[in-house]
Amino acid sequence: MQDKTERTLADLRRINDETCRKFQSGIELVGKRWSASILLAAARGAERFTDYYDLVEGISDRLLAQRLRELEHHQLLKRTVLASTPVQIRYTLTERGRELLVGLTPLIRWGEKWDSHE
Amino acid sequence: MQDKTERTLADLRRINDETCRKFQSGIELVGKRWSASILLAAARGAERFTDYYDLVEGISDRLLAQRLRELEHHQLLKRTVLASTPVQIRYTLTERGRELLVGLTPLIRWGEKWDSHE
Repeated sequence: MQDKTERTLADLRRINDETCRKFQSGIELVGKRWSASILLAAARGAERFTDYYDLVEGISDRLLAQRLRELEHHQLLKRTVLASTPVQIRYTLTERGRELLVGLTPLIRWGEKWDSHE
Repeated sequence: MQDKTERTLADLRRINDETCRKFQSGIELVGKRWSASILLAAARGAERFTDYYDLVEGISDRLLAQRLRELEHHQLLKRTVLASTPVQIRYTLTERGRELLVGLTPLIRWGEKWDSHE
């Protein structure tokens, strides 16, 4: 494990400015207040606005609507309108969103180990 | 690869609210403007204030000072004062910061694949 950490850190020494910029954009996107929790809610099965509202503890409906739009804009969530009466709207993970979440799982484990509230 | 994605997403369905909260705190911490770039700079060998200033493109010295304090407060960077004349200050990754960076490498690869600026 220690070796793997050293190897990964050695690789990181060689990354270039362009990669840094992309990484910074990506992490700022998911690092916005609630964004990560919304993506996790999607992974946990949320689809309707009310599903997200229930799963993302403490968010306001206004902010939830805004974040859903942002995540849709960045193609992490897909918005589907069902032709029912009344019209129903679903938000589900895109392939891009799924890959992002998978990439974030080490951070979930890190969070378990190092509780940031401490 | 597809199977691995499915398995990981299936695992994510089962995470609890407490884990979600820790994850949200962790990602908001590194998702703050410049924080991730500063940690990457540390991995790339930055130690002195001016090293960080050179490597983190576009940051102001005031904001850099603030972020270094925050990352030190959250025990991701360690501040060392060298008893020289003049006094020299070094910021280096802690074990916690190293593990976080290693955990973030899949996100770096994700950023390469899906440029968030598009």
